[in-house]
Amino acid sequence: MSQGIQKAACIGGGVIGGGWVARFLLNGIDVAVHDPAPEARRVVEEVLANARRARDRLFPARPVREGALSFHADVAGAVRGADYVQESVPERLDLKRSVFAAIEAAAPADAPIGSSTSGFRPSELQAGMARPGRLFVAHPFNPVYLIPLVEIVGGPDGDAATLDRAEGVLRATGLAPIRLRREIDAHIGDRLLEAVWREALWLVHDDVATTQEIDDVIRYGFGLRWAQMGLFETYRIAGGEAGMKHFIAQFGPALKWPWSRLTDVPEMTDALAGKIAAQSDAQSGARSLRELERIRDDNLIGILRALETNDWGAGTTLRAPAAPGAPEPGADTAAPLVLHGTRVPPEWLDYNGHMTEFRYLQVFGDATDAFLAHIGMDAAYRAEGRSVYTVETHIRHLAETAVDTRLSVRTTILGHDAKRIRLHHEMIDEAGGVQATGEHMLLHVDTAAGRASPMAAPLTDRLAALAAAHGAASAPDHAGAGIRGIGWPAREEG
Amino acid sequence: MSQGIQKAACIGGGVIGGGWVARFLLNGIDVAVHDPAPEARRVVEEVLANARRARDRLFPARPVREGALSFHADVAGAVRGADYVQESVPERLDLKRSVFAAIEAAAPADAPIGSSTSGFRPSELQAGMARPGRLFVAHPFNPVYLIPLVEIVGGPDGDAATLDRAEGVLRATGLAPIRLRREIDAHIGDRLLEAVWREALWLVHDDVATTQEIDDVIRYGFGLRWAQMGLFETYRIAGGEAGMKHFIAQFGPALKWPWSRLTDVPEMTDALAGKIAAQSDAQSGARSLRELERIRDDNLIGILRALETNDWGAGTTLRAPAAPGAPEPGADTAAPLVLHGTRVPPEWLDYNGHMTEFRYLQVFGDATDAFLAHIGMDAAYRAEGRSVYTVETHIRHLAETAVDTRLSVRTTILGHDAKRIRLHHEMIDEAGGVQATGEHMLLHVDTAAGRASPMAAPLTDRLAALAAAHGAASAPDHAGAGIRGIGWPAREEG
Repeated sequence: MSQGIQKAACIGGGVIGGGWVARFLLNGIDVAVHDPAPEARRVVEEVLANARRARDRLFPARPVREGALSFHADVAGAVRGADYVQESVPERLDLKRSVFAAIEAAAPADAPIGSSTSGFRPSELQAGMARPGRLFVAHPFNPVYLIPLVEIVGGPDGDAATLDRAEGVLRATGLAPIRLRREIDAHIGDRLLEAVWREALWLVHDDVATTQEIDDVIRYGFGLRWAQMGLFETYRIAGGEAGMKHFIAQFGPALKWPWSRLTDVPEMTDALAGKIAAQSDAQSGARSLRELERIRDDNLIGILRALETNDWGAGTTLRAPAAPGAPEPGADTAAPLVLHGTRVPPEWLDYNGHMTEFRYLQVFGDATDAFLAHIGMDAAYRAEGRSVYTVETHIRHLAETAVDTRLSVRTTILGHDAKRIRLHHEMIDEAGGVQATGEHMLLHVDTAAGRASPMAAPLTDRLAALAAAHGAASAPDHAGAGIRGIGWPAREEG
Repeated sequence: MSQGIQKAACIGGGVIGGGWVARFLLNGIDVAVHDPAPEARRVVEEVLANARRARDRLFPARPVREGALSFHADVAGAVRGADYVQESVPERLDLKRSVFAAIEAAAPADAPIGSSTSGFRPSELQAGMARPGRLFVAHPFNPVYLIPLVEIVGGPDGDAATLDRAEGVLRATGLAPIRLRREIDAHIGDRLLEAVWREALWLVHDDVATTQEIDDVIRYGFGLRWAQMGLFETYRIAGGEAGMKHFIAQFGPALKWPWSRLTDVPEMTDALAGKIAAQSDAQSGARSLRELERIRDDNLIGILRALETNDWGAGTTLRAPAAPGAPEPGADTAAPLVLHGTRVPPEWLDYNGHMTEFRYLQVFGDATDAFLAHIGMDAAYRAEGRSVYTVETHIRHLAETAVDTRLSVRTTILGHDAKRIRLHHEMIDEAGGVQATGEHMLLHVDTAAGRASPMAAPLTDRLAALAAAHGAASAPDHAGAGIRGIGWPAREEG
């Protein structure tokens, strides 16, 4: 779907351009790339490898659907037939303007053209274009495949309809567009970063702290607040019950204090550059660039997931795009049903290096939910005061499931009556090997009354049809068996 | 333990002082508070309520151990016998100096004295003290009970041994001290924050963005990076394979560009203050201060946990302090054993509003691990190439477990042979109600060979002693039973 977008063109394939390629491609959009640099293809492939790894960990249960990637010798070849064009070439005004001329000459007339520039205003870029209103700044943040922010700046000659359309296209790839009310040098994010960067350079220059110590102040301190609330909302809380006015009254005077060297810019001498590089080597040099990228991405994934759990801020961008039309409840009666799959992320491992035991039940529980949705017991059904609780579970662990294994679950119905459903799940790896089995007794309940209640048709009809299709032949020998073998009670082997 | 600290004194009980109270108190240290303000006790109690809620969610399985809290009418009463003193009174130099004189007059001579000041240098605070070297800045960040950073600044007359001792005391409460190499106005964090604050005020003043839009730029953008890596390490990655030198060469020139209004300070007129307050109301006014605090704290907890999973940055501060001397393996043979407890956090609930099914197995799995550690199968045992895998599990869900329920697990051994252990767990709520039972067959393995292997003494001896103590009488009727009742296979009821 993706707001009707089929094809995006990316002009410039460095780290930022490659990040744009990943944003589009991994959201099912075809991407055509042009970059004259000989190493462009390698850089794009490396960014894509990181982005795929992040995608697999962030959305283990989401079906993989990628667009087609192509590289082109010139701008015209890349932008022909594109629904959206993103420019990410080096920050030279003459170069950017010549690229925009080439894009205008070959791209469809209504394709929005976004620029990744951090340094130029849209009015500077639009000069000389036949239709300047279609060009705007769409400034992303590295890594583009994980950081949701993109700053949209239209410039004085911007076309509001084009910006609206561009926002929709970008939002459908999981980005969170923020539109500036008017153009300004360096937009918003880089102005704030620049302010901090200048102050940090003075702190290193004056030997108040090393690069490591400054980074620690940020990441053990206000960085934790800024990942979720930013500046003003954080200060609103700090102001206490009296709110923002109180905060400004209390801390306003500090604005006049000589807390900042920012009226001055440190000279980037060779000595200062060398000092920063040496401190940075001492801080981070023990890890390769690839290691640092993986650590950064894993942390970003964890932070985004934590925010998603709380339905807050950047976590809300992880919500799945609108699902394609779901099939009729219970229409598929194949035996076994395969309704759920996932991929084992590293945080599911235990100290033995395999998937930890409760994650097996998590996968089976998700498969049960998929089965219930399949027969029509979805959120709307639960909203009417009915639901299904698991009352009993029997798991057999048959293999040691490794990280990154792609799991799918085969589900059969073992039985049902007016109030109960008995399910059997098999957890299968890519090669068809059975990792574990789960047998589950579910009870239909009236959630308001808090007690078991009978199901009505059409649910009972769907269950009967599934039970007939799955048949007694599907019941495995271990169904109904308990744990036996040693100790009490002294019963016969099952 | 806590580095030998028994008692801390907190002079000043506002939001920051209350946060210090919580840091000490919830880490088992007695806290004596002095604050002449009539509402001080209420503010401290409110901060403590937030801090206890955060503690319960962050460390659900850690035993609760709080110090004793007392309020005192004067400084002398609070600091008498204190091992550490923290000052958090309003930012007026005369007031702070009179407080330090009162502290010096009554506190033990070797007690370190930390100041929460954000605006004064230690040399300004030390003037007039009999022993200036014992006073230093210990500048925390709100909320003090969750943000690990504390900036330690010793000043020119600082005493290195005192600073070392203070660092140890603070680290034992989960704080992450960063020591500045020399004093500077506003230390490090507030200088960086001040730079951003000034730039943000211009953006609001010039109508480039609203407070909400600026916050979104931060929290959807670089705030996500800064929660984990800070400024320099992030830029090192952005510099690509060429590293920090390349980044500086590439972006150094931008330092000269007019990207910042920071050479100028906006006048905080009534009009600007009113505009910020109105925008902040539009952004955050729909939520009460208490709601915003809860959201902030829940997000901080999630972010800290995500970083802990990756063993990175602020997440490393969650590691439990050194455990008190563990009992002899297997020494306790009570039936049943109670070796694990936890509290149900909100993220464990499912769409039915109860603890979701796989979390039951998580609690049982943790109880199994506690049992294994109890008999001597710990990390050292596993490091020798032996471990225990769960091969079969039977869970009976008997109640709908609610959020914040304090759960404990009663464990009995049902049987054992050379290679196997059969356990039974009961999950109990505060009132003794059984929420669920778990029966588990464990297999002892040679992890290198990847196959079952016999256990050696003293493990087998400990298991035999436990089995004898727990006895056949402990085996519940449902032990060894399977799932029965409906459908295939058509066996008799169990």
